[in-house]
Amino acid sequence: MAFQKPKGTQDLLPGTVEKWQYLESVARDLCRRFNYKEIRTPIFEQTELFQRGVGETTDIVEKEMYTFLDKGKRSMTLRPEGTAGVVRAYVENKLYGEPDVTKLFYIGPMFRYEQPQAGRYRQLHQFGIEAFGSVDPALDAEVIALGHMFYQEIGLRDVIVEINSVGNAPSRAAYRETLKAYLKPMLPELCKDCQSRYERNPLRVLDCKVDQEKFADAPSILDSLDEECQEHFDAVKQLLTDMGIEYRINHRLVRGLDYYTHTAFEYKAGGIGAIDTIGGGGRYNGLVAEIGGPDQPGVGLGLGIERALLVMEAQGVEIPREEPLDVYLIGLGEQAARETAGLLFKLRAAGIRAERDYLGRKIKAQMKAADRAQARYAGILGDDELAQGVITLKNLATGEQETVPLDQLADKLKEAPAE
Amino acid sequence: MAFQKPKGTQDLLPGTVEKWQYLESVARDLCRRFNYKEIRTPIFEQTELFQRGVGETTDIVEKEMYTFLDKGKRSMTLRPEGTAGVVRAYVENKLYGEPDVTKLFYIGPMFRYEQPQAGRYRQLHQFGIEAFGSVDPALDAEVIALGHMFYQEIGLRDVIVEINSVGNAPSRAAYRETLKAYLKPMLPELCKDCQSRYERNPLRVLDCKVDQEKFADAPSILDSLDEECQEHFDAVKQLLTDMGIEYRINHRLVRGLDYYTHTAFEYKAGGIGAIDTIGGGGRYNGLVAEIGGPDQPGVGLGLGIERALLVMEAQGVEIPREEPLDVYLIGLGEQAARETAGLLFKLRAAGIRAERDYLGRKIKAQMKAADRAQARYAGILGDDELAQGVITLKNLATGEQETVPLDQLADKLKEAPAE
Repeated sequence: MAFQKPKGTQDLLPGTVEKWQYLESVARDLCRRFNYKEIRTPIFEQTELFQRGVGETTDIVEKEMYTFLDKGKRSMTLRPEGTAGVVRAYVENKLYGEPDVTKLFYIGPMFRYEQPQAGRYRQLHQFGIEAFGSVDPALDAEVIALGHMFYQEIGLRDVIVEINSVGNAPSRAAYRETLKAYLKPMLPELCKDCQSRYERNPLRVLDCKVDQEKFADAPSILDSLDEECQEHFDAVKQLLTDMGIEYRINHRLVRGLDYYTHTAFEYKAGGIGAIDTIGGGGRYNGLVAEIGGPDQPGVGLGLGIERALLVMEAQGVEIPREEPLDVYLIGLGEQAARETAGLLFKLRAAGIRAERDYLGRKIKAQMKAADRAQARYAGILGDDELAQGVITLKNLATGEQETVPLDQLADKLKEAPAE
Repeated sequence: MAFQKPKGTQDLLPGTVEKWQYLESVARDLCRRFNYKEIRTPIFEQTELFQRGVGETTDIVEKEMYTFLDKGKRSMTLRPEGTAGVVRAYVENKLYGEPDVTKLFYIGPMFRYEQPQAGRYRQLHQFGIEAFGSVDPALDAEVIALGHMFYQEIGLRDVIVEINSVGNAPSRAAYRETLKAYLKPMLPELCKDCQSRYERNPLRVLDCKVDQEKFADAPSILDSLDEECQEHFDAVKQLLTDMGIEYRINHRLVRGLDYYTHTAFEYKAGGIGAIDTIGGGGRYNGLVAEIGGPDQPGVGLGLGIERALLVMEAQGVEIPREEPLDVYLIGLGEQAARETAGLLFKLRAAGIRAERDYLGRKIKAQMKAADRAQARYAGILGDDELAQGVITLKNLATGEQETVPLDQLADKLKEAPAE
C-alpha cells in the first residue's frame, strides 16, 4: 500500500525547504541583533494550559485543538500556538527572578484542526517573540519594529502595521458596557454565536465572521481609554514614528480576552486574498498571572511562516541563491574511483562541499551529474593523475582545466570563486 | 494554578539552548559539505506507516507510540523516529524519479512513551540522514563517516564505530535457520517475549534485555553471508580504513526486520552508563518497497541529540562562546532615553547587536545590566551629547572612553573587537 501525508500537512523538500531555512536565518539574525534568546518548549502540553492561556471562548480552544489522552490517561494537546507554552516555561523555570527583562523567541510547528486552504495548514509554523517584565511602551514599539523589520528583510513590500489599544481592565470594563448598550437592540438579528458571546465576551462579537458588517458604526474602544492607557498608546505611536515605521490605527482590532492589555497590532499584506493578516501580537499584562505566575507584564508577537511565504510568492520575491557544490569528483577506472571515496572524505573534513557518483555511471553521465549539482569544478582522477599525485580540475563555468597536486586541492578549492 | 511541562519533556532555555543550536549548526554544515539536503516531514503520520515502516514487532510500535484519533477519526501517531516519514515522503513525492542519488537529512523532535531517565525523554530529538537509490558500499561508508565526523566536530572523544553485516534475504534466511537450531534447546528457559519472538522474528531474540547473557555463544550472522554480502561488507570495511575511521566488528549487532540489509552500525561512547549507544543506522534495501514504493535501496543513520549532549557533559566538552552584545545604550534623562529607542532601531537595522534598559533604572543599574549582557561597549547619551550629535562609547573590557559622532556609530561598532 502507498501512504500519504496527513491532510493539511506538508512535506518540505529540497527546492522548497531552502525558503524556510532562509526565513528562519533572517529571524534568528534579527533576534540576535534585538537581543532575544531562543526558547524551545515541548510540542504538546497539558490541555488545561491552552484552555487557560489561549482562552476557553476562542475558536482555537473550542474547535481546533489536537487533544488526546496519553498512555497515563493525562489529557495532552499539541500546541496550537506558541505563547502559552513560553509563559508556562517562564513561570515554571522562575525566569521572572532574573534582574533584566526576559526576551525570548521561538520558531516551530503549531497544530490546528482547521479546514486546509491556501496558506492554512493543520501543522503550521510560527516565529514568535515574547518579552516579560517591563511595562515600558518602548518595548511594545520594539516588538512591533522587530516584526516589521522581519518582513522588510525577507523582501516583502507594502506590509502595513495596524495598531490599537485595548486598554487596561477599567477601560475595558467601561467599553464593555458601552458596547453592550450598542449591541442590545441588534441582538435578535445576530447569529447564535454572537448572542452567546454578548453575555460571555461582548468584545468578541465584533470578530464574528457572519455579522461583522453590521457593526460598522460600533463605538470605538479608543473612546473608553483612561489616562494611563492613552499615555501608553500615545508613547507607542510616537516611538513608531521616531523609527520611521508607518502604521494605521484600527480601533476594531480587539482581542477578546481579559489578559490582553494596551497595545494590539497586526501586520497586513496585499495580494493573498481576503485573509490579509500575516502576523500580529500585543501586550498581555494579565497572562503570566492567569497561568499561575507572579503579576509580571508581557508583550509579544507571532508571525505565520506559511503566510509570509504566500506573500513572498504573490510578490515574486526571490531568496538569495544557495552556495553551489565546490567540486564533483570523477574517478576514471576502478582504482581511481575507489580513491575518490577517501579523497572526498578528506576534502569534506577540510570544509569543502564535495560529491561523487554512487551509481557506477560512465564519465559523460558523471559530468552531467556535476552540472546538475551546480558544482564549481569537476575533479577528474585517472590512473595517470593517481601515479603523479595530482588531479585535473575543470572549471564548469569557463571550461578551463588545470592540474593541481592532490595535497593542494583543498586550499585551491577554498579560494573564493570568480564571479 | 501552576502548570508543569509534561513528564519526560524539556524546556530548553537560554544558557542551554545554545548547545542545541551549536550541535545543529555542526550537523547542517556537515550535510552541506556531504551534499545532503534538508527534508521536513510532518510531526504526526498515519499510525499504519510506523507499523509498516518501523515494524509491528518492535518495542517502539508495540509499547511506546503516542497514538490518537484526530477529529476525523483517523488514527495518527506522533513520529517515534525519523526514517519512516522520510521514506513515505520519498515515495509520495516520487523523488526516486530524479537521476541522481537522493541524499536527505532531518533534525527534529520524535516521541516515545518510555520511562524517563538520564538522556532519555518522551520528546527526544534526532539528527538523521537517508540516502536512496544506490547499492554502492561507498555510500554506506559515507553515511558512517558523516556520523563519525559529527561526533568529532562537536568535540567528543573515544567514539567507537561498531559494524556488522545483516546480509541480504537469502543470507538472513540461512542464518535464521541456524539461529533457531541453536535456540531451540534453550527455549523452555527463555522469557515469554523470547518464546514468542522465536517463531515470529528469531533475530530479535538476541536483543532481549532479559536473556541476552545466555546467548554468548550464539552463531554469528557473518558465517551465513553469501558472496555478494561478503563483498559488500569487505568493501565497506576497506573504505572505512581508507578514511582512517577505526571500527570494530560486532556480529551481535543485528536489526530484526526483513528490510534491513547488509551494513548495520552503531556509535558507542564511554562515560554515560550502561546504555552506551549514541547513534546508529544501516542499509535498508527493502524498506522503500515495504512502504509501497519502487524497489529502491537506501542507507541512513539517526543520532540522538540528547545522547550526544550527555556525552559532551560527561567529557567536559565546551561549545564555542557566543558573540556578545555590541553595545548597550544608556540614555541620561527623559529626552535622551527616548532618543535611544530610535537609535537602537537604526543600529539593529545596520546589523549591530544592541540593547537598552526597559525598566527605568538608574545609570549605575544600567551599567550593571550592560555588564551582565556582556556588551562590548556602553553607549552613553546625555543632553550634551544629544546637542552635539555624538555619543560617549565606553569599552567595558578596558574602561576606555571615546566620543563618536552618531552618524559614525554603526561603522565604529562594526569594527572587529580587539581580543
